[in-house]
Amino acid sequence: MNKRKIINDPVYGFITISSDLLFDLVEHPYFQRLRRIKQLGLADVVYPGALHTRFHHALGAMHLMSQALKALQEKGHQIWEPEVEAAQAAILLHDLGHGPFSHVLESVLMPGVAHESITLVMMKDLNRQMKGKLDMAIQMFEGTYPRKFFHQMISSQLDMDRMDYLKRDSFYTGVIEGSIGADRLIKMLDLSGDHLVVEEKGLLSIENFLHARRLMYWQVYLHKTLLSAQAMLTQVLNRARELSDRGEVLFATPDFQRFLQHRFSLIDFKKEPDLLAAFNGLDDNDIWASIKGWSKHADPVLSRLSNMLLERKLFKIFFLDTPPDDSVLNPLREQLLDRGVSEDQLPYFLITGETTNYAYEKDQDPIQVKMKDGKLLDIAAASDIPTIDALTKIVRKYYVCWGKNVSLRG
Amino acid sequence: MNKRKIINDPVYGFITISSDLLFDLVEHPYFQRLRRIKQLGLADVVYPGALHTRFHHALGAMHLMSQALKALQEKGHQIWEPEVEAAQAAILLHDLGHGPFSHVLESVLMPGVAHESITLVMMKDLNRQMKGKLDMAIQMFEGTYPRKFFHQMISSQLDMDRMDYLKRDSFYTGVIEGSIGADRLIKMLDLSGDHLVVEEKGLLSIENFLHARRLMYWQVYLHKTLLSAQAMLTQVLNRARELSDRGEVLFATPDFQRFLQHRFSLIDFKKEPDLLAAFNGLDDNDIWASIKGWSKHADPVLSRLSNMLLERKLFKIFFLDTPPDDSVLNPLREQLLDRGVSEDQLPYFLITGETTNYAYEKDQDPIQVKMKDGKLLDIAAASDIPTIDALTKIVRKYYVCWGKNVSLRG
Amino acid sequence: MNKRKIINDPVYGFITISSDLLFDLVEHPYFQRLRRIKQLGLADVVYPGALHTRFHHALGAMHLMSQALKALQEKGHQIWEPEVEAAQAAILLHDLGHGPFSHVLESVLMPGVAHESITLVMMKDLNRQMKGKLDMAIQMFEGTYPRKFFHQMISSQLDMDRMDYLKRDSFYTGVIEGSIGADRLIKMLDLSGDHLVVEEKGLLSIENFLHARRLMYWQVYLHKTLLSAQAMLTQVLNRARELSDRGEVLFATPDFQRFLQHRFSLIDFKKEPDLLAAFNGLDDNDIWASIKGWSKHADPVLSRLSNMLLERKLFKIFFLDTPPDDSVLNPLREQLLDRGVSEDQLPYFLITGETTNYAYEKDQDPIQVKMKDGKLLDIAAASDIPTIDALTKIVRKYYVCWGKNVSLRG
Amino acid sequence: MNKRKIINDPVYGFITISSDLLFDLVEHPYFQRLRRIKQLGLADVVYPGALHTRFHHALGAMHLMSQALKALQEKGHQIWEPEVEAAQAAILLHDLGHGPFSHVLESVLMPGVAHESITLVMMKDLNRQMKGKLDMAIQMFEGTYPRKFFHQMISSQLDMDRMDYLKRDSFYTGVIEGSIGADRLIKMLDLSGDHLVVEEKGLLSIENFLHARRLMYWQVYLHKTLLSAQAMLTQVLNRARELSDRGEVLFATPDFQRFLQHRFSLIDFKKEPDLLAAFNGLDDNDIWASIKGWSKHADPVLSRLSNMLLERKLFKIFFLDTPPDDSVLNPLREQLLDRGVSEDQLPYFLITGETTNYAYEKDQDPIQVKMKDGKLLDIAAASDIPTIDALTKIVRKYYVCWGKNVSLRG
Repeated sequence: MNKRKIINDPVYGFITISSDLLFDLVEHPYFQRLRRIKQLGLADVVYPGALHTRFHHALGAMHLMSQALKALQEKGHQIWEPEVEAAQAAILLHDLGHGPFSHVLESVLMPGVAHESITLVMMKDLNRQMKGKLDMAIQMFEGTYPRKFFHQMISSQLDMDRMDYLKRDSFYTGVIEGSIGADRLIKMLDLSGDHLVVEEKGLLSIENFLHARRLMYWQVYLHKTLLSAQAMLTQVLNRARELSDRGEVLFATPDFQRFLQHRFSLIDFKKEPDLLAAFNGLDDNDIWASIKGWSKHADPVLSRLSNMLLERKLFKIFFLDTPPDDSVLNPLREQLLDRGVSEDQLPYFLITGETTNYAYEKDQDPIQVKMKDGKLLDIAAASDIPTIDALTKIVRKYYVCWGKNVSLRG
Repeated sequence: MNKRKIINDPVYGFITISSDLLFDLVEHPYFQRLRRIKQLGLADVVYPGALHTRFHHALGAMHLMSQALKALQEKGHQIWEPEVEAAQAAILLHDLGHGPFSHVLESVLMPGVAHESITLVMMKDLNRQMKGKLDMAIQMFEGTYPRKFFHQMISSQLDMDRMDYLKRDSFYTGVIEGSIGADRLIKMLDLSGDHLVVEEKGLLSIENFLHARRLMYWQVYLHKTLLSAQAMLTQVLNRARELSDRGEVLFATPDFQRFLQHRFSLIDFKKEPDLLAAFNGLDDNDIWASIKGWSKHADPVLSRLSNMLLERKLFKIFFLDTPPDDSVLNPLREQLLDRGVSEDQLPYFLITGETTNYAYEKDQDPIQVKMKDGKLLDIAAASDIPTIDALTKIVRKYYVCWGKNVSLRG
Repeated sequence: MNKRKIINDPVYGFITISSDLLFDLVEHPYFQRLRRIKQLGLADVVYPGALHTRFHHALGAMHLMSQALKALQEKGHQIWEPEVEAAQAAILLHDLGHGPFSHVLESVLMPGVAHESITLVMMKDLNRQMKGKLDMAIQMFEGTYPRKFFHQMISSQLDMDRMDYLKRDSFYTGVIEGSIGADRLIKMLDLSGDHLVVEEKGLLSIENFLHARRLMYWQVYLHKTLLSAQAMLTQVLNRARELSDRGEVLFATPDFQRFLQHRFSLIDFKKEPDLLAAFNGLDDNDIWASIKGWSKHADPVLSRLSNMLLERKLFKIFFLDTPPDDSVLNPLREQLLDRGVSEDQLPYFLITGETTNYAYEKDQDPIQVKMKDGKLLDIAAASDIPTIDALTKIVRKYYVCWGKNVSLRG
Repeated sequence: MNKRKIINDPVYGFITISSDLLFDLVEHPYFQRLRRIKQLGLADVVYPGALHTRFHHALGAMHLMSQALKALQEKGHQIWEPEVEAAQAAILLHDLGHGPFSHVLESVLMPGVAHESITLVMMKDLNRQMKGKLDMAIQMFEGTYPRKFFHQMISSQLDMDRMDYLKRDSFYTGVIEGSIGADRLIKMLDLSGDHLVVEEKGLLSIENFLHARRLMYWQVYLHKTLLSAQAMLTQVLNRARELSDRGEVLFATPDFQRFLQHRFSLIDFKKEPDLLAAFNGLDDNDIWASIKGWSKHADPVLSRLSNMLLERKLFKIFFLDTPPDDSVLNPLREQLLDRGVSEDQLPYFLITGETTNYAYEKDQDPIQVKMKDGKLLDIAAASDIPTIDALTKIVRKYYVCWGKNVSLRG
């Protein structure tokens, strides 16, 4: 069989799919679905180039994993081929459980179910289909594999996931200041026992990596305009569900219909054998197509919000240092009420929220540096000036987002 | 009003929206729709990064237009500000009339209606809404503006359209060999009377540009795997229409439903005032969402093709130098019939087609070079070796594309 | 006359020389000399691509100046064409006074004479030759021009000089983590009265810029191996001068001979009318050619050091947090004495030094941010976490650099 | 020992020195000298970024060699580690014999001695020093190693030498249209028996590669301004030698002096044991330093030419399709004679020459394509349109280059 094993990637040049197992995973419908889930959801409202998918990201992370393991091998660490393949498989599949628009709709589509749980359900189902070939990959993913550094490379502050997404998101948004030197970072990785550490001479690269991450957060992931679009999208879905709960049948693709009419929990995936297939039927297109259907719906809230999203007429948004109180919100409420929005419709046109970000998590999962004398230090202690310390501070912002120009009057 | 006037673009860095008119055009729902129409349709089945949209491409072409006009001004050519704005507007809007998946579905969605005609309908409607502000832009687009070079910059072998799409497609596919030196090409442009020409010292750049274009055709636009996916997509739509014609109501978004159930001609856009709005309701999401709906349909042809597309199980495809005759096709037909495909279903699983390409059109719209002595030469005559001549040869290939692994048996 | 006015630059694409005056300055022998003075001196011992010259850097800084002034004009600030030209001229010429290997040899070639003073002498001489056309440029350079921001754009923590050199040095070394988003930084510049400030939304870009600068310092400018090579080069020159002082005539190009045999002060440039021409006769080639001549000299110190530099056999170097005391140095001295180095030769083979760096100078020349409410804040106060504060800390390191493998025994 | 084994390269990211032998070769003075020989000689008179050295190019070619051999191994070809190292060593050393300014001065410094011969002398000397470790590398270099494809990868139309230099020269000049997809080209290489061939699907990449090469020739290597500077440099050296032959002792570094005063043949390298060391003492700095010394010489031809080169006051140059005859040359001669140039000085200020280029050498060393059916075809036959044929045509141009503004009158 002529398996296509080299994939063009504008970020790294070429990505090699290096084994039959990896090829079969890529070909599987569970993975192919990720072609239709954008990595950054609605970010193209600000950055029109940011249309890359979780499919592409997962391939990129797999590529970095192979590079990183090669670098560790070259430093004399024994890593077996089955481990290499398992680690690549695990990172390849790490995002399977994302639904359409990922984080944004996670809590709306299946309240209380984290995408990581679905990922695991899907990985296990794949493992069943593949007769156990993913045993080791699943152990690495879950953190039960004895050599802990594999899990760290899949999920930690230095994992291949964020190395790829930072580099890829920077590339596709065009925010070049967020670009990281993934090549060099990877060459700086080392092991201390079974733990992933960084060579001392990689210290500044890590510092830079954390700063790039901070910049990407505020410039991209938490960009005001994007937050506004996300808030609107969430409210569209909430309204649709509300109407659906009232018994209205809304336009939706069959699989999406099912999720709109129920609130599934993780246990339902065991009880309803076809639910996983239905979940795998969901992607960004269902949401957009439904919004288009809803844009003609009789409910003014649903149709208005849908149209505004389609036409990119986004709510105004502003940040505050403290939670907005009535002195801030009441004047906005007044204006909306004046323009025909009813009391119970208010939450759809006046949304508050908060965002937090810290560039470096010091306590839970510190990045350790292997000094030239062999000692291990937390990166904050290893740095010659307190820049890393500064990055551990949590930045919290509150926002108010509202339909300044919305009128529901006849 | 706080108009957002600088847009990040990974290809050029930043794109400036330089006037209120241009800003209003970008904000208009007609233009915003292009956010949801990918420039390269299904090309991501081969190049996962190729997800950029006509929205982004149009902005890029507008950017190049402003650069090119600046370059001409610096060479002493008088170009007025209203002309600059009109040329930018015209190139910005030149793709408005594209439907979902552009060329692929053009003949299926509205047989006999070219997207350029729809573009013009939409531009005129915009002009009406904007009270004539697009008069000059429309003249330039149609080629009736007295200074002919503006039309050439919008539509010719050296237009800003293809400069942007070659550069952008090369960037997002990662086919770096297709990259063109747009900056330098633009600096080599000049006018001779009212015609766009190229300075003699730009000769090799043009040669290179044509070669890059040739490479992009075979490596990207006419890539075998992409042709196969496109053939399948076309047949899915054809099947859906066939069922629809028979009276079945298929799942589809409301606007798409309308196009599925009718075959509109250009004249219908005049007769049915809301048809343009319906057209503007169509984009790639409608197609994907419908395909997802159809993947569960009772008709085995529709559901099989839909599922295969969703899971990227594509038909085998091979090229021939001559049109495939029965000696080629009959064995394939046999196999399909053996596997439960009926005679009348055959065309959906065995598709033939042809592609042609010529890298340089010598006759219709030659590229002229202004030699140092002032003489104008066709680029083929100006070149010191017959490489351009070679590029005028038409390359024609025939293909057969079939469901090698398809079985419709029980 | 056919003036070549567009220059290819891998960093920015093309650099335009936009006026006759600028063209004449570029053509002048004073400026052409900069083609033979590398921007980073010996840095190619670590980064083989780092061979770019002050000529190229100065052109790049001129390019950024034109971009930055355009950005300010687009924000509504009135800046006249003569000011634009003067600012471009001033930044173009700002490095004229650099001798071979710039900072490294500055104190050896002409002790006590800063290169900035020579730059001014040369600019004034050019102004005399050009009959006053550089009056305004010189005022801007000196800081006497009334609109202070021009001087800030030539020399401050946000000047076009460092924007170009950071971007260019990052590009040519391949240390991509040091890359800055010069385009975006420039778009974030604004004026407050006559002072250069940064828009609030540029805050993270500035933070990133300062971090990139910090990284470039430790990764490139103060790289251990480079410091070692620089120390050796300095000692080669010191030895040559010592021998010259003793009356030996060493091999050297005529102009360099003159500087080797004298220690000129700034006042000598006035007294000896041809001294400026002699200075303009010096560049990196004189040093390398002389070192090659000296590599065969009878003096073992001079020839040994020369040969080692030519063959890149560099001294060992290590860093200390405190000045090295005898407990550190004595063992090294012992080893050298053991291997035939005499007491008076010791300083040539055992060199100590210190380096300091602070990424952000808070006091002398703060970067001011214009908040959305119009207030001006020091960037450290404007940032939401204390990363900028962290960058104000001075990092000081001491180093010892010595000829571990040197033996002067027969 | 702490061997530095990873080198930053802006072109490829990082270059790995993968064995002790390769490390020792890089450290050897023969190889270190290449740091001071620019790849493109005087090309920075046109492209100021083109300062990269043969040192850097050789490392890059070694990198590509390792990539290409890996690609062949992945296709199932058995290639042993000692072969990989030998091939890398051979390509690393392939340029050792280049003197200062490479091709330009080759015929002036040692008339009749090709740099390849010197390379071989130096490789053999290294092999002697290294006790035979380079035996296999030398066989590959000379073409006597049984598996012929190694020699093809070192020297042929598809060798790693030109892949690196095209990519690198394009990068550093900023002529991005000359950029080649080296990554993809390398993945398209294959073996047929012991011969290097290209897979059919690499056909367009090769076509593109040959076109990029053609573009680089005319845009860079044979750029008019560069030809003029080279002609002047040659004449400076010719004049210096002429004066030297007359018995004048000119300023020069000791090693260069020796070559100025003699015309060595290859046999002299055997007879004079220290001649190789003297040759290794030569690099670009000797030439520039000498030109600076000569710029003050009493001979007006020598000093004038030297000064003009230093100040980049280059001769006018124009191209002709036929050899220039007296009707072209006499008027120029008249003007020069009028301005005080004597008859015997004329050849220094009026230079004629010719350049030829063909992008693809069809006969001597054809590029072979392995078609999908296994057949081998010459690339010209394999292409679907005659573009490759077009590239086999030799382009020949004649030029006249003269000191239009030169006057030797008092």
